[in-house]
Amino acid sequence: MEELQRLVDLCRPLYTRGQAASYIPALADKDPSLFFVHIIDEHGKSFSSGDVTEKFTLQSISKVISFIYVCEEHGLDEVLKHVDVEPTGDSFNSIIRLENTYLGKPFNPLINAGAITVSSLLVGNTKEQQLVGLYNFISKMTGVETTINEEVYQSEIVTADRNRAIAYYLKSNEVLVGDVEVALDNYFRQCSIEVDARCLAKIGLILSNDGVDPLTNEYFFSKKIAKVAKALMLTCGMYNASGKFATFVGIPAKSGVSGAVLSIANPESMEGLSGKIGIATFGPAIDEIGNSVTSIAFLKKISEQYDLSIF
Amino acid sequence: MEELQRLVDLCRPLYTRGQAASYIPALADKDPSLFFVHIIDEHGKSFSSGDVTEKFTLQSISKVISFIYVCEEHGLDEVLKHVDVEPTGDSFNSIIRLENTYLGKPFNPLINAGAITVSSLLVGNTKEQQLVGLYNFISKMTGVETTINEEVYQSEIVTADRNRAIAYYLKSNEVLVGDVEVALDNYFRQCSIEVDARCLAKIGLILSNDGVDPLTNEYFFSKKIAKVAKALMLTCGMYNASGKFATFVGIPAKSGVSGAVLSIANPESMEGLSGKIGIATFGPAIDEIGNSVTSIAFLKKISEQYDLSIF
Amino acid sequence: MEELQRLVDLCRPLYTRGQAASYIPALADKDPSLFFVHIIDEHGKSFSSGDVTEKFTLQSISKVISFIYVCEEHGLDEVLKHVDVEPTGDSFNSIIRLENTYLGKPFNPLINAGAITVSSLLVGNTKEQQLVGLYNFISKMTGVETTINEEVYQSEIVTADRNRAIAYYLKSNEVLVGDVEVALDNYFRQCSIEVDARCLAKIGLILSNDGVDPLTNEYFFSKKIAKVAKALMLTCGMYNASGKFATFVGIPAKSGVSGAVLSIANPESMEGLSGKIGIATFGPAIDEIGNSVTSIAFLKKISEQYDLSIF
Amino acid sequence: MEELQRLVDLCRPLYTRGQAASYIPALADKDPSLFFVHIIDEHGKSFSSGDVTEKFTLQSISKVISFIYVCEEHGLDEVLKHVDVEPTGDSFNSIIRLENTYLGKPFNPLINAGAITVSSLLVGNTKEQQLVGLYNFISKMTGVETTINEEVYQSEIVTADRNRAIAYYLKSNEVLVGDVEVALDNYFRQCSIEVDARCLAKIGLILSNDGVDPLTNEYFFSKKIAKVAKALMLTCGMYNASGKFATFVGIPAKSGVSGAVLSIANPESMEGLSGKIGIATFGPAIDEIGNSVTSIAFLKKISEQYDLSIF
Repeated sequence: MEELQRLVDLCRPLYTRGQAASYIPALADKDPSLFFVHIIDEHGKSFSSGDVTEKFTLQSISKVISFIYVCEEHGLDEVLKHVDVEPTGDSFNSIIRLENTYLGKPFNPLINAGAITVSSLLVGNTKEQQLVGLYNFISKMTGVETTINEEVYQSEIVTADRNRAIAYYLKSNEVLVGDVEVALDNYFRQCSIEVDARCLAKIGLILSNDGVDPLTNEYFFSKKIAKVAKALMLTCGMYNASGKFATFVGIPAKSGVSGAVLSIANPESMEGLSGKIGIATFGPAIDEIGNSVTSIAFLKKISEQYDLSIF
Repeated sequence: MEELQRLVDLCRPLYTRGQAASYIPALADKDPSLFFVHIIDEHGKSFSSGDVTEKFTLQSISKVISFIYVCEEHGLDEVLKHVDVEPTGDSFNSIIRLENTYLGKPFNPLINAGAITVSSLLVGNTKEQQLVGLYNFISKMTGVETTINEEVYQSEIVTADRNRAIAYYLKSNEVLVGDVEVALDNYFRQCSIEVDARCLAKIGLILSNDGVDPLTNEYFFSKKIAKVAKALMLTCGMYNASGKFATFVGIPAKSGVSGAVLSIANPESMEGLSGKIGIATFGPAIDEIGNSVTSIAFLKKISEQYDLSIF
Repeated sequence: MEELQRLVDLCRPLYTRGQAASYIPALADKDPSLFFVHIIDEHGKSFSSGDVTEKFTLQSISKVISFIYVCEEHGLDEVLKHVDVEPTGDSFNSIIRLENTYLGKPFNPLINAGAITVSSLLVGNTKEQQLVGLYNFISKMTGVETTINEEVYQSEIVTADRNRAIAYYLKSNEVLVGDVEVALDNYFRQCSIEVDARCLAKIGLILSNDGVDPLTNEYFFSKKIAKVAKALMLTCGMYNASGKFATFVGIPAKSGVSGAVLSIANPESMEGLSGKIGIATFGPAIDEIGNSVTSIAFLKKISEQYDLSIF
Repeated sequence: MEELQRLVDLCRPLYTRGQAASYIPALADKDPSLFFVHIIDEHGKSFSSGDVTEKFTLQSISKVISFIYVCEEHGLDEVLKHVDVEPTGDSFNSIIRLENTYLGKPFNPLINAGAITVSSLLVGNTKEQQLVGLYNFISKMTGVETTINEEVYQSEIVTADRNRAIAYYLKSNEVLVGDVEVALDNYFRQCSIEVDARCLAKIGLILSNDGVDPLTNEYFFSKKIAKVAKALMLTCGMYNASGKFATFVGIPAKSGVSGAVLSIANPESMEGLSGKIGIATFGPAIDEIGNSVTSIAFLKKISEQYDLSIF
């Protein structure tokens, strides 16, 4: 897998074109030159580069996991009553469409308005129960106990005004279910969930294999939900650059401002890896849109070299 | 003053074209056929029709009073750092411009975004102190102790999601000063302040006389602030119908969804009244824009008959 | 009238804070340090400073004159079917509300969308007849034959894409009457009408006196239309700074990007002038909003000194 | 292929849920119960149902073909200077983003603003040459001379005001190249191009095979351009329902208000068809978003039955 490592080495220096997210100290302090990659295929073969056991927070990547979990719990139809699956050209934290659109339903679960709505659907009678379900869902997929980064979580709470505005607007539109502050707290916690590249790639592998772990045959979510999640990642997963990523990389992916990107592919042959694969990349330097600079570059490279585009 | 009473009688039946505000039970339960009018001139002469001692809540009329009070406390220049004085064509509860406009400063203090910003500027180390100042300001003008309608206040809190969204958005834009929940609580309380038509007309008289009570020569606020308040009332005081009211009535006015309207004029002669006058009207049936149907009709009639338009 | 001249001299140096409009060569070439003022009162007394016989184009000032003319021809009610009288917080050349608002009717006749709609209502079977009516209307008021600046007119045509977009959008909304290109040509011609400060002040005097020339008693338009025009000028006449102008100057005014401003007032006594007055100022250096820097400063000065504000 | 015919029969009655486009007589007069399907695979095998030689106009389907053609002529990089590849949540004929977005570049070539921009890039010194190139490009793919429906073309011109507004706005933003009216005329002509289902499916087959006709090995456009086109179709091809189509059908597709849909897939086995396929469906009854009701239903059915989704 020297070729994959060569591509990693080629992309790592590009971190200088971005910088670590600044709104949260715990993110801003990350070394921007870090670049970790972990890829795992359906046969259990894997490629690693960098410290794939160093943890980072999911941030917006949690949106797609939370959406999957809630759909599996409530049924897709029920969830789609609260959130649509249409891309927008707006910023992830835009509130305008909630006012301009008749029903005020968020356009998709990967923008903040949609993700907070989904967080309000987390099941459980108590706040603890609601999150325990999501934590367990992730833990079972990764084989590692789910933890949150307390420092990041506290920072999210402190910088929450815009998200709180969105949440109360959703409540006034009768889209958000239950208590606003509980939904927000769920949302901040899920954003603060910590994983390493190995765990994230494993989640990708299960998604790539339509909800079933190909290594254990364990079922996590339905094929139907997997397809919805993949379509959402392709059309809305990379913030305002989703269209360009679909066009020039062409694989379902979701990024977070921590610098992590979760993506999936299905190569015929990629340096010994083949079939369904999950890909986790982590490079804290993000561009002005919010996507990891090195991750984008690397995913573009491997998409071209191994013909990963679904188009 | 039979002619004024004739005009009242002419306009009262028009209440059937509107209906009482429905979002708060305490407002919805008002008899829509009520119509109270009190006018007082700088010589102390007055005209009354209906029960001018029955109380109603200020609602949005409080926005202009709170603005005046805060300007008098902080100075106009300081307040205008937080809120502009430009009309918009948007709904009173619109949030869009906070996102679309570079600085995110509310366009004027008579839309909710601006009024909540102003509420955040109420002075005092404690919440109680903040409101005591405003209450005292009003009490001194009216000669009556200021009270709030507890039922309306509790209802405002319950239906507060949209305003809370606006407030947190303002906070994220660093426009709103201090604690968001305190500013909102101030705002809900000021909206719930109760006055009767006599008191409201008295406030109008002082505003009409540029901040000084013409009957006692007591000073309340500066002429400069009075002029700003009047200009704001003319350009933005009647919600989305402000332009039409300026055009066809032509006097500074501010309405509230309770059905009250505060306005001022300066007639040469109006059935024995003359000079600076304050006008309070109250008719709970409001049109779809939020303005009292009977009040609008009556103000238009007297403007035409006694040449009240400032244009 | 030395004091008025002193205020002119005080304001003239402020031209350095703005610059001449750049989108049209004929405007860009104007000496930005020019500053002409002409004021005429209802008794025929006047104040002049600078070359009050040098011509400049009306630009957006034509919007209010054309609106008055069309209202007088068609009746106010008919015109208001096509254009509302509500202020907006948008740029003069914004198209967004035509899409966001249900009916797509322009909010007022002083933004481009509204002015082009009004231009489409100019009466006459032929394009020539349509404009002859407006030209004659102006000529009779000023006592001077109305001419257009051919160079400016040609430049307007060349830089017309945004206005053409607005006009076709209005047509698709079925607001604009008749042929789009004819309406646009009318609009460009009326913007290119040339007047000098004396003529412009005369128009102001007639408007100030509610449509009747106080010097000749000649009737031009109804008092009702005059009041609508004045209200529009106050609420929407100074582009996106209309609210601030209403607040801090407080007189009906309309500016054009040529650097001209038409305004009216009613001083008790102003250095020998009194009663209804028309004010024309011309200083080509405009601020980023489009208003003449020196004109704004001068109008603010005289408003404060002679208590001109209508509030 | 009885099963495919069974699915056609199942979906045809659903036409009652939509109605033929009403804005153009030539479209409104179509029998809404028509439903034609033609599918052709890379081996030349095909399935037909209904009159697959009856012609219909491309309407918005032309947008993707024109985009491909222009990219092949100018190079992808050059075209992307004028139009982005990001989805929006807006209507196809929205103008708002041209004002709200800094650069004013259309978000993608499948909304009207983007398509008209692309039409302005059609090469050729004369209008005739510009379109001859596109016509020839299509003729060579279909093997049939390209014609336009003159009645539809004339109707497009008559109902062109909104598109003309968009085009002039683009011109004022300096996005649209060359003469606005020429670009518009190109656009109306390309919308009026007539094909039958066989021809449309053939175009789909070539796109599906990345720009090369698999039956003749003739080259039409590059694989890179094909991938961009497919990504655009998936993210933006089905108007405001593109996200839902991606989610629940999951194949690149482009619809037109004539009721035609062009789509592509790559089934392992579909009643004897296999490998790259082009799919043309035509059912004039469209839903409120603009997509053929019967086409959508049929494509969803075959996607589920033959696992066509790319996700």
